[in-house]
Amino acid sequence: MVSGLARETIRLALLEDLFHGDVTSLLLVPEGKNAKALIRAKEDLVIAGMPFVREVFLAIDSRIDIKSFFNEGDEIVKGAEIAEVTGNARGLLAGERTALNLLQRVSGIATMTSAYKKLVSDLRVKIVDTRKTSPGMRFFEKYGVRAGGGDNHRFGLYDGVLIKDNHIRIAGGVRESVSLAKKTHHLLKIEVEVRNFDELREALETGADVIMLDNMSASDMTQAVKITNGRALLEASGNITIDNIRTIAETGVDIISIGALTHSARAVDISMKIV
Amino acid sequence: MVSGLARETIRLALLEDLFHGDVTSLLLVPEGKNAKALIRAKEDLVIAGMPFVREVFLAIDSRIDIKSFFNEGDEIVKGAEIAEVTGNARGLLAGERTALNLLQRVSGIATMTSAYKKLVSDLRVKIVDTRKTSPGMRFFEKYGVRAGGGDNHRFGLYDGVLIKDNHIRIAGGVRESVSLAKKTHHLLKIEVEVRNFDELREALETGADVIMLDNMSASDMTQAVKITNGRALLEASGNITIDNIRTIAETGVDIISIGALTHSARAVDISMKIV
Amino acid sequence: MVSGLARETIRLALLEDLFHGDVTSLLLVPEGKNAKALIRAKEDLVIAGMPFVREVFLAIDSRIDIKSFFNEGDEIVKGAEIAEVTGNARGLLAGERTALNLLQRVSGIATMTSAYKKLVSDLRVKIVDTRKTSPGMRFFEKYGVRAGGGDNHRFGLYDGVLIKDNHIRIAGGVRESVSLAKKTHHLLKIEVEVRNFDELREALETGADVIMLDNMSASDMTQAVKITNGRALLEASGNITIDNIRTIAETGVDIISIGALTHSARAVDISMKIV
Amino acid sequence: MVSGLARETIRLALLEDLFHGDVTSLLLVPEGKNAKALIRAKEDLVIAGMPFVREVFLAIDSRIDIKSFFNEGDEIVKGAEIAEVTGNARGLLAGERTALNLLQRVSGIATMTSAYKKLVSDLRVKIVDTRKTSPGMRFFEKYGVRAGGGDNHRFGLYDGVLIKDNHIRIAGGVRESVSLAKKTHHLLKIEVEVRNFDELREALETGADVIMLDNMSASDMTQAVKITNGRALLEASGNITIDNIRTIAETGVDIISIGALTHSARAVDISMKIV
Amino acid sequence: MVSGLARETIRLALLEDLFHGDVTSLLLVPEGKNAKALIRAKEDLVIAGMPFVREVFLAIDSRIDIKSFFNEGDEIVKGAEIAEVTGNARGLLAGERTALNLLQRVSGIATMTSAYKKLVSDLRVKIVDTRKTSPGMRFFEKYGVRAGGGDNHRFGLYDGVLIKDNHIRIAGGVRESVSLAKKTHHLLKIEVEVRNFDELREALETGADVIMLDNMSASDMTQAVKITNGRALLEASGNITIDNIRTIAETGVDIISIGALTHSARAVDISMKIV
Amino acid sequence: MVSGLARETIRLALLEDLFHGDVTSLLLVPEGKNAKALIRAKEDLVIAGMPFVREVFLAIDSRIDIKSFFNEGDEIVKGAEIAEVTGNARGLLAGERTALNLLQRVSGIATMTSAYKKLVSDLRVKIVDTRKTSPGMRFFEKYGVRAGGGDNHRFGLYDGVLIKDNHIRIAGGVRESVSLAKKTHHLLKIEVEVRNFDELREALETGADVIMLDNMSASDMTQAVKITNGRALLEASGNITIDNIRTIAETGVDIISIGALTHSARAVDISMKIV
Repeated sequence: MVSGLARETIRLALLEDLFHGDVTSLLLVPEGKNAKALIRAKEDLVIAGMPFVREVFLAIDSRIDIKSFFNEGDEIVKGAEIAEVTGNARGLLAGERTALNLLQRVSGIATMTSAYKKLVSDLRVKIVDTRKTSPGMRFFEKYGVRAGGGDNHRFGLYDGVLIKDNHIRIAGGVRESVSLAKKTHHLLKIEVEVRNFDELREALETGADVIMLDNMSASDMTQAVKITNGRALLEASGNITIDNIRTIAETGVDIISIGALTHSARAVDISMKIV
Repeated sequence: MVSGLARETIRLALLEDLFHGDVTSLLLVPEGKNAKALIRAKEDLVIAGMPFVREVFLAIDSRIDIKSFFNEGDEIVKGAEIAEVTGNARGLLAGERTALNLLQRVSGIATMTSAYKKLVSDLRVKIVDTRKTSPGMRFFEKYGVRAGGGDNHRFGLYDGVLIKDNHIRIAGGVRESVSLAKKTHHLLKIEVEVRNFDELREALETGADVIMLDNMSASDMTQAVKITNGRALLEASGNITIDNIRTIAETGVDIISIGALTHSARAVDISMKIV
Repeated sequence: MVSGLARETIRLALLEDLFHGDVTSLLLVPEGKNAKALIRAKEDLVIAGMPFVREVFLAIDSRIDIKSFFNEGDEIVKGAEIAEVTGNARGLLAGERTALNLLQRVSGIATMTSAYKKLVSDLRVKIVDTRKTSPGMRFFEKYGVRAGGGDNHRFGLYDGVLIKDNHIRIAGGVRESVSLAKKTHHLLKIEVEVRNFDELREALETGADVIMLDNMSASDMTQAVKITNGRALLEASGNITIDNIRTIAETGVDIISIGALTHSARAVDISMKIV
Repeated sequence: MVSGLARETIRLALLEDLFHGDVTSLLLVPEGKNAKALIRAKEDLVIAGMPFVREVFLAIDSRIDIKSFFNEGDEIVKGAEIAEVTGNARGLLAGERTALNLLQRVSGIATMTSAYKKLVSDLRVKIVDTRKTSPGMRFFEKYGVRAGGGDNHRFGLYDGVLIKDNHIRIAGGVRESVSLAKKTHHLLKIEVEVRNFDELREALETGADVIMLDNMSASDMTQAVKITNGRALLEASGNITIDNIRTIAETGVDIISIGALTHSARAVDISMKIV
Repeated sequence: MVSGLARETIRLALLEDLFHGDVTSLLLVPEGKNAKALIRAKEDLVIAGMPFVREVFLAIDSRIDIKSFFNEGDEIVKGAEIAEVTGNARGLLAGERTALNLLQRVSGIATMTSAYKKLVSDLRVKIVDTRKTSPGMRFFEKYGVRAGGGDNHRFGLYDGVLIKDNHIRIAGGVRESVSLAKKTHHLLKIEVEVRNFDELREALETGADVIMLDNMSASDMTQAVKITNGRALLEASGNITIDNIRTIAETGVDIISIGALTHSARAVDISMKIV
Repeated sequence: MVSGLARETIRLALLEDLFHGDVTSLLLVPEGKNAKALIRAKEDLVIAGMPFVREVFLAIDSRIDIKSFFNEGDEIVKGAEIAEVTGNARGLLAGERTALNLLQRVSGIATMTSAYKKLVSDLRVKIVDTRKTSPGMRFFEKYGVRAGGGDNHRFGLYDGVLIKDNHIRIAGGVRESVSLAKKTHHLLKIEVEVRNFDELREALETGADVIMLDNMSASDMTQAVKITNGRALLEASGNITIDNIRTIAETGVDIISIGALTHSARAVDISMKIV
């Protein structure tokens, strides 16, 4: 089941790539010709996004058939056949690039997330994404994070209260901000960003559910964990890399959020060849 | 002037991030309150995308005012103020993330393109993008390539005939493919992908305008340039990196296409702070 | 600031009422003629929705001017002038019905909510809405509840985990359901519906944040409050009326949700007359 | 056959409720799991809207199967099974609320209309709706009126000329208005609102097809019927209730229009339970 | 005031012509450059559609200014300046073709309608259009008919009952069809197509409001007018040309409908030149 | 395979004609009734557009079945059965007019194109269309040109560089314009409009790929062909008619573009009758 939001992105992506038609296939590929294509991994990767590949092809021609050979989130080695796509040849070529662009990006995110996650999988820390996503692609990118073993932060501005420095500046402080935020509906938790131990204590006293430690050093985080002592969840944020994630995780924070999972993941290499 | 296609992406991106509203600002920011925010570079970068930042904020509130301090494509140093955004504080916060996501991605692409371009700027070779873009974001990403000093390949399946291996397999060969393609409208050129010198010669004999050398070694490219002898443009494609681009450019090819410019550029770090 | 979602509804509502044009005004009203109209309360009511009235008229003609004489949520007596609308006469007539339909419905919801709220305003209980809204109108209807002094429950299926009987039947029990739900993102709370004290205890032991007491008698609710003893928020749901709301509130539950606020509120009577 | 307009509302309603996904089902309901649900009346009602329930579920998943056990417009007793919905369990839960919101509202309108209609069913008077509908829901609400035995007034501003007080004020009188309106296309009739017998006579002399008696007393309506003597249809409008509809009908008017049928009908109680 | 329906067509037309951008202007026209263009008649014509030209340019750039030198429906001689368009040069070139396509088509229809109308202007017969319009352009094309002195038939399938041969075949005859149609809402008239005098009499007896004489000879029409004797409006339809319109009008029919006004009008020649 | 752009036009066309429903069929045609209809040529014509007829009916009801008896581009004689449409009778009537409007227009264009083409079919000249199309209908109209044996010019402002008089005026001359245009992407050719032999020579020297001879006399064109001597393609444009096309073709130009093919083609007569 693909959401209405996701369908809008697929519609837009196909419009962008196909618009009034594929001038090359129109000339080279006979109208009724059928073909079979193989989607194949050209490097080791974590596969994610095949349900969207299916949606792309079905949006073009509802008779195209897709067989996937792996489960979402599976680790796949270079050269493996990921899926087989059968149907009208013009339809296959019309969807190829959009399908691959989606699949390469989502799998790239899953692959990167998985690499981070493995470094801390023995700890109970959650690796989560941010809202730093490609405009229009958030649904797909956050799906890739989950497929790679990560967790999601809130989806948008409406499914979680997250008080950041800009809000605090306007509202007049951490305490004032958290207090005002308590008016939100009863199924949303409140998270607040803090820069130092004073703000952390304010946040704890006012009853924030989650506290974001913004760009703190690992040693400060360790201290923050002690001060908090389980009264709130702690989220480490800012400048997390593959090199320092273990150190940060070991400070005892509950959540590590990494913008790079979605804004800077490299697309993995996947091809689709007619056979 | 922002195209209708670009406006559709911005509409979708705002829907995705804002949907029915920003629950945090609704509680913390008084309705009529105005504010000023600064957009600032947090690393050295090539700036690109400010016209789209403007569109994002205007789509939210037509009275928001944006002053840019640089021209598109300018090189900016860490810490520099890029722009000032003034207006309704809720509007500023509502647009912040979508605007920055766009700006960071487009500037990231411009920055990466510029780095590649500089390595070959004394040569007449063109650095171009591909259709390996984020679904829905092609307009913005190809703009970023131009802002960074690169050139664009075709935009989609409709503004250039590009015969790839899948087409050749269906049509029955390079010669047959190029011949069929000549029926296209008289303002489109024909490009064909070749894997070896035999196919190159076929392509030249049939009168292809541009020939893509797919994953050839640098020495084979040098040989291809000789064989071609100016009868067609040559495009090097596949596995181009910052390390080998100079070598490839020196083979004498006319165009180097790099998928990574759009599918794997890292977002550069840019912040927006209310002051 | 009106959300993108709200704008889509206004666009659809105008399409529905106006479509290709107002055949009556086209014949009876000279093209350039300007007019002034008064929006007036025809019964006592709580006013809510004027920002949307503004959006409706601006969507038709950006030069129409609207002056409101009250704040959202104000109590207004029969006969009072609510607003003055000035501009092109055809534009005024084109927007009249859509604007009034919105205003009468949203104010009707605010008025009903306010009536319920007043009966319990000395208690700390929250009066909240449900997802039983008019399709396409949820944004406006939930706004009306807030304007009338109520609070909102979650907006849709994505901004809060609410485990109802259908989920419990599939997942195999309250305990199993709540446990599974804990995987949700860290800014969402978990609410579960229970039918008896056994399920209530299960929910408490598994750590549900909010517990919905479905169609319980007031005396059972009182007992549930004792059992819960502050370990979770309790929401009373089902068959709440103006007659029993006080009794239910006095059981000590934290939240009372009332579907009728949005699915069965009577539109209040408001007119718009050209003067 | 559901119109394009209706499909737009369903799309918007699903976007509003589901947006990027149902976070509860995602966690609690296994992906491939199928289920069967029963839709059941929880009070006596006139059923209407099942074709739209079908559209809602098909928009989510084209393999969901719906069996209806009644005809549109049937009177149903409390407890009766209305329909059976079978298919993917996540799909069933995703569509449940939107489907029920539509069905409860449309059936509520049919039920209310039927109650009014029964009181005058021995007379030849028509009970009709108005344009006082929920924005975006007019198609469905007017359908509910027909299903309940009522008739429709015009759908929007384009399928009938209806001259109201605001037009008359601008055009300069009933006579002038009706004369100008005669230029409309030859398949539209002309209706004009009158407040007294003088205006009624003007309308008759100018050849109006239908005359709306605005907020007249029953005895004045009786007199108006006499004056008119079959030269035009007469529509009673304003403040019609279940208590006075019989009296008004007995005055001999041809049409009674009731805004409350659509703007203030109570949603009837209908549930959907997985079995 | 341009309807929502018309705006959708303009949006689609601009997407179709401009899509991601005008590659020629992007290279040849400096970004900030302003220009003035003159729209000029290149043949004698009746001008219609300038409000839509305005909408096209405003949709591209809200600062473009348009001055019209004529009223809609004016007769213009070859060479006359119709309007002046001033603003951003890229914007002018981006809108030029779409604006002219609209203007040439709508003016072409006005010009053709005017030619027909003049031949019968001393008679009280109405010249009307049909639903044989260019898909998506009906609003504009029916406007052109009015601007040329004609009248409109119904706009679509929803604003008038028109019983044609296909309906009659299904319903079982003219009498049965008209009777069933009387259930329609009270502001719609009923028109029925007849092929001979028997059917005409049936239609008159059943009380049709308008009767379409389908492809009858002029002498049969004269006879039909006699038989009808004012009891219904008569519409002549089928094979009306500039050569026979006078003869047909003189039969005494009330309405002559001409599909060619919209489906086969020649676009008139209008140019836009930067000065 | 019908493009996303084409689907948007079909959606808009059906909205325009059907909107909330077909009031005639609703009353006269029983809901479940099936019917068969024949689409028939009422004059000699070249048939084109049946795939779009199919799309129209499928958009209404996916169970409607269409059998075509000819290939696109076939010459058909008056009276021939073109296709058979079977399915729900209301669905057939709902789609009839939109389907025929499309088919009559596209076939009309194919028929006109074929007539022009036949006059020059022994020569190697191409007959092409322009961007002078009905707004929103370009995809369909350019398809009709191809079906009639013509070729397409560029589709829009993005798939070919075409430098016209307005650009030349801004850029400062033919030479300057062509030079600037060479920066376009490497799969687009450059065409420039010239008014005299001096400009022709400038265009040739600067390396334009295609040169448009704007409104030149046939003898000047003959001279232009000599001057050009194969160095560029020559396109004759302006005032081409059925009477002068042979003369122009014999000048030796490569391409003749004819705006009338799309802006002024007469719709051919095609009917659809229920049998």
